[in-house]
Amino acid sequence: MHIELNRGSSKSLPQQISDTLGQRITSGLLQPGIRLPSVRGLASSLKVSQVTVSKAYEELESHGHIICSQGKGCFVARRPLTPVEAGSAWQDGYDDFLPRAQLWRNFDYSAVQYPFHLAAIHSELLPLQYIGATMSSLVTGQPELMASYGNFQGDAELREVMCRHLQSRGVEVPSSDVMITSGSQQGIDLVARTFVGPGDTVYLEAPSYTGAIDVFAGRGAEMIFIPIDSEGMRLDVLTRLCDKRPPKLIYTNPTFQNPSGVTMSMTRRQRLLELARSYRCLIVEDDPFSDLYFHKPPPPPIKSMDKEGHVVYMKSFSKVIAPGCRIACVAAGGNILSRLIAAKSASDLGSPLLNQRAVLPFITRRYDAYTRQLRTALRGRMETAVKLLKRYAPPGVTCNVPEGGLNLWLQLPGAEGIGKLHARAEQAGISFLPGDVCYSGEVPSRHIRLCYSQMKEADMEKGLRLFLQLLTEHLRTDQLT
Amino acid sequence: MHIELNRGSSKSLPQQISDTLGQRITSGLLQPGIRLPSVRGLASSLKVSQVTVSKAYEELESHGHIICSQGKGCFVARRPLTPVEAGSAWQDGYDDFLPRAQLWRNFDYSAVQYPFHLAAIHSELLPLQYIGATMSSLVTGQPELMASYGNFQGDAELREVMCRHLQSRGVEVPSSDVMITSGSQQGIDLVARTFVGPGDTVYLEAPSYTGAIDVFAGRGAEMIFIPIDSEGMRLDVLTRLCDKRPPKLIYTNPTFQNPSGVTMSMTRRQRLLELARSYRCLIVEDDPFSDLYFHKPPPPPIKSMDKEGHVVYMKSFSKVIAPGCRIACVAAGGNILSRLIAAKSASDLGSPLLNQRAVLPFITRRYDAYTRQLRTALRGRMETAVKLLKRYAPPGVTCNVPEGGLNLWLQLPGAEGIGKLHARAEQAGISFLPGDVCYSGEVPSRHIRLCYSQMKEADMEKGLRLFLQLLTEHLRTDQLT
Repeated sequence: MHIELNRGSSKSLPQQISDTLGQRITSGLLQPGIRLPSVRGLASSLKVSQVTVSKAYEELESHGHIICSQGKGCFVARRPLTPVEAGSAWQDGYDDFLPRAQLWRNFDYSAVQYPFHLAAIHSELLPLQYIGATMSSLVTGQPELMASYGNFQGDAELREVMCRHLQSRGVEVPSSDVMITSGSQQGIDLVARTFVGPGDTVYLEAPSYTGAIDVFAGRGAEMIFIPIDSEGMRLDVLTRLCDKRPPKLIYTNPTFQNPSGVTMSMTRRQRLLELARSYRCLIVEDDPFSDLYFHKPPPPPIKSMDKEGHVVYMKSFSKVIAPGCRIACVAAGGNILSRLIAAKSASDLGSPLLNQRAVLPFITRRYDAYTRQLRTALRGRMETAVKLLKRYAPPGVTCNVPEGGLNLWLQLPGAEGIGKLHARAEQAGISFLPGDVCYSGEVPSRHIRLCYSQMKEADMEKGLRLFLQLLTEHLRTDQLT
Repeated sequence: MHIELNRGSSKSLPQQISDTLGQRITSGLLQPGIRLPSVRGLASSLKVSQVTVSKAYEELESHGHIICSQGKGCFVARRPLTPVEAGSAWQDGYDDFLPRAQLWRNFDYSAVQYPFHLAAIHSELLPLQYIGATMSSLVTGQPELMASYGNFQGDAELREVMCRHLQSRGVEVPSSDVMITSGSQQGIDLVARTFVGPGDTVYLEAPSYTGAIDVFAGRGAEMIFIPIDSEGMRLDVLTRLCDKRPPKLIYTNPTFQNPSGVTMSMTRRQRLLELARSYRCLIVEDDPFSDLYFHKPPPPPIKSMDKEGHVVYMKSFSKVIAPGCRIACVAAGGNILSRLIAAKSASDLGSPLLNQRAVLPFITRRYDAYTRQLRTALRGRMETAVKLLKRYAPPGVTCNVPEGGLNLWLQLPGAEGIGKLHARAEQAGISFLPGDVCYSGEVPSRHIRLCYSQMKEADMEKGLRLFLQLLTEHLRTDQLT
């Protein structure tokens, strides 16, 4: 367990340790029942004395955060146990195959007034009336759609529509090579459960999409994070590493990358595909944002050059038009797709047919005109957000100017205290995504991700100003003392 | 690979082998690219001469079903390869973690006129107008529901409603112990991915729900199938086996079991729970049918006696009211549920909020009155089906008389030729579920499952008569020659 200590701080080291751990416990990142490192182990890894760690643990115990017992060690506490809970204590020893603690994602964000944490589009920008009207007429005219399990691969007509859509983006696949999933998250999950097993090497960008990291971690993959620069994933680094550890799979989000906003150049796209060919491995190309460019269209998808079925291409439609409908498409060839369909059937017996049909007419008739408008609206918000940052961000804080997508990726002067900033922001009704979750988690990140499209524009402005004020105070107190 | 041979048949042994394999190939059970056993290996396992197997393989090759090459062996053929497919040949060597071939489930059943294969309720019996009206008014009045990812655990209000519902069935859990999933299939999948790993022992009933078998197989579990009798799972057998191989998990479908229709007695329910307590393991209690009883209500769920969080209880609502909505609930306690929520978030970021809200008013206000009517309708269909069976089933075919649920479980005199019967039935527009998929697959099953509720009553009658005619002919030709 890594805890960033600031030896120049006016706050004592035991206090810094207990604050950090306390915050992780109350945030749910450290779950009840988890065993903390031994005093000796933590002291040695943090290079502090055992007395310092003991003091920190005593402090945590006095607040009821942890329970220590001679010989057994210290554990994250539950609330006082009810009789039922006491009876359920056996559960703590029941092994699981979950990756890192993800419960911070299950927070009740409904109390948050300024939600910057989730990369999403505010409902006032979405074509919900159109899709709602379609849905309304479907449930009236064809109520049997609600009775049907549909086809595991997805509705044939919708696959046809998606296939024509992909064609217009340079991806030529037959509709038999397309599968419908409940969002891209499920697509990534299906690929991982089908093709990634314990010890398999998966390469990702550093930083990467947190939902993908969780999924590959859950399969026991060896994840290797490749640094990025302005042209995307550093292929020189990747190539060198692949020699030592051949890839089972490479996960990339090449266009307006989540979270960094970077777009992979055409040259690198080609080289990445060549690399996949020579290692006979899969590329998962996760592409939620390519229609959301602000200046010029991004390079065509890697999939457009793929002649031998190395690329599993994923495009979420619901993200851009109606996130609650959970409709994405996966394009893959040959028996890679057949196996993914088998996995889909075991996973949920197919996506709801009604939801598939509800987005179909919109994608057919309106999608392109709609995304033209949406791009303008998003660009406006992005520019407002960047303007505010330029004016109000404290010194040492930098930020990309995105060419597309939904996110800002801020870099702070240091990684210290981001947990505390998160807690403070939450008290003020503001949420953001801590950069930590976009990496392997071994080294604390000094980044945070803010989404500029999840609120009404006026709220976003107000929330961002407020956040920048908090950030200024935070850096003044925690950084510069 | 096991092939049932009938040495008394007028059909030659090579022909029997090539027919069986040919059927498995065209049905998708043997997928393109799969390598067949060597001539020597198959000859030895079937106890026939190598010449017999060679002849069978030649026959298959002459029909284009397989491709044999000197030294490499025989493989299930694809269609003639296009250049793209030829380039994708690397995919055949790309390892996956899929269990048995499930592609038979992805058949295009739309051409089937009499679908008996899927345990489902025909749309004319479902309250689709009510749910459709709710959905219509939701998309008009609260279009933002289509924009929201909702909460990973599920909508709080719906969890509250489900919790009161469970209470009325004897299951007392707080709504914080309830999670919403996209059908019970997803619930089983989440439990498996969270708690079952390679080599873990999972006990199931023999026969069991095919979707559960697939999921546990996909995790690399050691599945042990426990025989059932009229009181459900044989606990004497289970107890004996648990001594040797302690269970990680026990999967049961205790009420109107799918596929056998058997209900576990109260005594066995209690003993099963005690067994789980002493082995500190989980029981997955999958309970889709308990509201669909024909005479008297079944015993209360095992979950109703569970004080220490050993039971993960699953109840599908969409199955009974609107299968296409894919809404089920999972009730589990303590940190078993927390971990399942984490798995849900990685799996699909939560079930569509609109679908959750669409079923909410119906479950609150109409569910109980509706299921009263539904029971009467289903019982009528079951009685019609049983009457037809008594009158027209050929000698040697027996069938249970279900006390509830949606299925008939037929036992044929032998397992031979069920694949062929399936193919013949399909040509006649009739589908059924071969019993094989409800077992481990090592021994061929002589059962088939027919669902009596998936069609209009008149169609069911007509289809069943037709099927029984086919069955009579089938047994006359294949069995008694």
